[in-house]
Amino acid sequence: MRFISTFFILIVFSTTAQDINKLTEEHIQENGVQILQDFKTLLSMPNVAFDLPNINKNANHIISELEKREVETKLLRMVGTPPIVYGYYPVESATRTIAFYVHYDGQPVDKTNWTNDPWEPTYYSKAIFESGERMEFPTSFDQINEEHRIYARSAGDDKAPIITILTALDMIQSNEIKVTSNLVFFFEGQEEAGSRQLQQYLNDNRALVDEIDLWLFCDGPIHQSRRPQLVFGVRGVTGMEITTYGPNRPLHSGHYGNWAPVPGQLLSELIASMKDEEGNVIIDGFYDDVEPLSDLEKEALANIPPIDEDLKRELGINNPEGTESYNERLLRPSLTIKGLSSGNTGKLARNVVPATATAAIGMRLVKGCDPEKQKDLVEAHILKQGFHIVREDPDQETRMKYPKIAKVTRSGGYPAARTSMDIPIVQDVIARSKDVAGDDLILMPTLGGSLPLYLFTDELKKPAIILPIANHDNNQHAADENMRIGNLWYGIKLMSALMTMN
Amino acid sequence: MRFISTFFILIVFSTTAQDINKLTEEHIQENGVQILQDFKTLLSMPNVAFDLPNINKNANHIISELEKREVETKLLRMVGTPPIVYGYYPVESATRTIAFYVHYDGQPVDKTNWTNDPWEPTYYSKAIFESGERMEFPTSFDQINEEHRIYARSAGDDKAPIITILTALDMIQSNEIKVTSNLVFFFEGQEEAGSRQLQQYLNDNRALVDEIDLWLFCDGPIHQSRRPQLVFGVRGVTGMEITTYGPNRPLHSGHYGNWAPVPGQLLSELIASMKDEEGNVIIDGFYDDVEPLSDLEKEALANIPPIDEDLKRELGINNPEGTESYNERLLRPSLTIKGLSSGNTGKLARNVVPATATAAIGMRLVKGCDPEKQKDLVEAHILKQGFHIVREDPDQETRMKYPKIAKVTRSGGYPAARTSMDIPIVQDVIARSKDVAGDDLILMPTLGGSLPLYLFTDELKKPAIILPIANHDNNQHAADENMRIGNLWYGIKLMSALMTMN
Repeated sequence: MRFISTFFILIVFSTTAQDINKLTEEHIQENGVQILQDFKTLLSMPNVAFDLPNINKNANHIISELEKREVETKLLRMVGTPPIVYGYYPVESATRTIAFYVHYDGQPVDKTNWTNDPWEPTYYSKAIFESGERMEFPTSFDQINEEHRIYARSAGDDKAPIITILTALDMIQSNEIKVTSNLVFFFEGQEEAGSRQLQQYLNDNRALVDEIDLWLFCDGPIHQSRRPQLVFGVRGVTGMEITTYGPNRPLHSGHYGNWAPVPGQLLSELIASMKDEEGNVIIDGFYDDVEPLSDLEKEALANIPPIDEDLKRELGINNPEGTESYNERLLRPSLTIKGLSSGNTGKLARNVVPATATAAIGMRLVKGCDPEKQKDLVEAHILKQGFHIVREDPDQETRMKYPKIAKVTRSGGYPAARTSMDIPIVQDVIARSKDVAGDDLILMPTLGGSLPLYLFTDELKKPAIILPIANHDNNQHAADENMRIGNLWYGIKLMSALMTMN
Repeated sequence: MRFISTFFILIVFSTTAQDINKLTEEHIQENGVQILQDFKTLLSMPNVAFDLPNINKNANHIISELEKREVETKLLRMVGTPPIVYGYYPVESATRTIAFYVHYDGQPVDKTNWTNDPWEPTYYSKAIFESGERMEFPTSFDQINEEHRIYARSAGDDKAPIITILTALDMIQSNEIKVTSNLVFFFEGQEEAGSRQLQQYLNDNRALVDEIDLWLFCDGPIHQSRRPQLVFGVRGVTGMEITTYGPNRPLHSGHYGNWAPVPGQLLSELIASMKDEEGNVIIDGFYDDVEPLSDLEKEALANIPPIDEDLKRELGINNPEGTESYNERLLRPSLTIKGLSSGNTGKLARNVVPATATAAIGMRLVKGCDPEKQKDLVEAHILKQGFHIVREDPDQETRMKYPKIAKVTRSGGYPAARTSMDIPIVQDVIARSKDVAGDDLILMPTLGGSLPLYLFTDELKKPAIILPIANHDNNQHAADENMRIGNLWYGIKLMSALMTMN
């Protein structure tokens, strides 16, 4: 019986899936020009999380787009924080509820590094770093090539899924397709600022979220091999800034050089003490809490195509950190010098002993690591290197008391998470995604990047899967962020498929 | 006979000196308000060396001030370089020619670090860092206190001596004092840019400079003990910038952190390898060429009051570099991290693995060290640490070939210099300076800072002495540079005394 019923369901799936995929392709052809225009409009709105006037403008725009598509909406608000755009698309005799998470905020920008203004979307024939040429936005579908790219902050991370979801709704409605899941849209406004109030938002709106059976996280890039993927976990994230101190004001490097302590020297020595020559962290206990992979996860990992040589060539790297493969490295917690600053370099460099030097340190966590404990370990290491730790710039008494002083400013952050691959509804998602993406769909146990997935997997205790659609070279978080058009179309097909999943 | 003649000369000196000192004090009282106004006018002119329109404005202003005082002037020019203001004040039956060197250019500014605009001079009741209050410029002499300070770029380094020289000329002329030395004024416009064309200027104007018997260098701060000093040598200066490379563009620190090489980590490890825990440079051969002090220099050094504890308190330092005293440290070549930059820190910090990290390294040299050789030693050390050295950003082929790459950009610079203390004309300067400064005048074998003194001592082969007048806490080269009024008055008295030296 079980065999027959499974067989029958597969037949129905297969037929429906083919129809839907075809209808979606036709919808893209008929509406592609307008889809790009809608995307451009959305990308034109500055969206740094705590720039609240602009972030509210984004939220209101998205609300009105959802309402145009018969979605019941609600702006979940907490004073002084970016709101959550909540949408509910109820379906008669639905058998389950599936939620789509997206974040509509973006990373801060340093405009001096961008080719164009990050919030004035531009259209290119291909990637700028591959000598793409700037073009006008297309006015007919046959002008559009899948290699084209749209450049703007959040093009890849993470406004593209919003457009794909809106388009999938249009497709469903214009073709009067029967949907069997209630759909929830949960669009966050402060993911790039660390999702500080997400937990509170979830707690305050428990009635809305408790009926959800599956969370689909629409974020992140596809696999570096350019093959589509589903991702079942993420690394956690935290970090800290460390400031070291020289004299209490910048001094002439001639009159005091060789006597005044040099903060950049002290900071360099501290940073150098944190890793060995192969790039492994040598802070005591740093890898102790890492949880091992299950057999299923190991198998999935083994099936991921090796990308190291391609990546090295693409990124101009001869010698990556560590001796393991790229995928193995993602399963260890990381410590990255994201920024260094002391005095000036280049044309503004002056002959001084600077007063301070600062390092911004990013840390990624894997399942098992606690963000606070990892920072404690780094602080214990700083103490072991002979530094006295302060939380504010040291006063004169403190300066006179300690030979070496480090100010440590701890960031928040959250732990890693992973969803098991063998839950039935998870298996459904895998099957339907393969209909769209083909058999080369990669099943990735964990992504290198971070999302607050633990709130869903560990606190709400629901399965959560990440559906990346952005090209892997979308420059997310950096200058010249972009979205490849072919990936946008893939996202529309994937959303259409999963929204109509039986 | 020798005893009597020496005795007679001392009597004449002593009488004249007292008269001159008294007349100078009266002149300051009568003209103090105007002197400050003239200083303010001079400081209002931006004077970064290769900002030629502004630098020419400075030069023309100084020329016209000299001409008002019957000095024969000449603008020594080389196309595209800051000119030298040359002045000649011939004296009938002069027995010798004394030159006063000053530089009228200043260090570049990072205005964001200044309390006020660096080229809009402000007047304070005392040092800003000691809670000095901003005041109007005085309108009568009894409003002026010696602890007051003028804040502006070049207030201490090095426009103050120009005002003291102009004022000393006024004093001499209004009192009709007989001068027995021809006076030469030699004001350079690119000292802070490395005096790149000074040698050429001296070569091209050999006829003007060959008659000079003694060079007095009016630059630098007085001793840190707040006691006046004469200085007989300087450290040389050179430097380099080092850039290390990660991926060929900034990458998301989640997706690539723990795999992509981190340029700030590589740079920190390189910098850390250059010094031991006590702050001594451990680059092979770095101290090998240091020339030992003569017995007379050792004696002078021993007579310098210890200032280490005061300096540590004033600068908020518990643990200076090295184990020797401050004065001993200045007699060793230095290596200082003047600046560090990679990605961003603070509010602009982003979750990226940056593409590059750069350190600006300043090096000071002592007598015996060759600037090019010292940089060669640092480069040999960089190679020894496993880096491949490039002169331009590496191309893809170079990136793929070498595990670690460092771009080294070498600065120019020049060697150290020292003048012997026992030359007769040098002894005259010491004696006359003691008349003004008192017996606590410090004779310093070498200054920590740098001037292109070797061009005079080693190439023109003439004695050269440095006459510092600026307060030691004048913040030269940094933000909030300033000049203490008491030090300005001291400078006027010293210039008056030395111009009228028999």
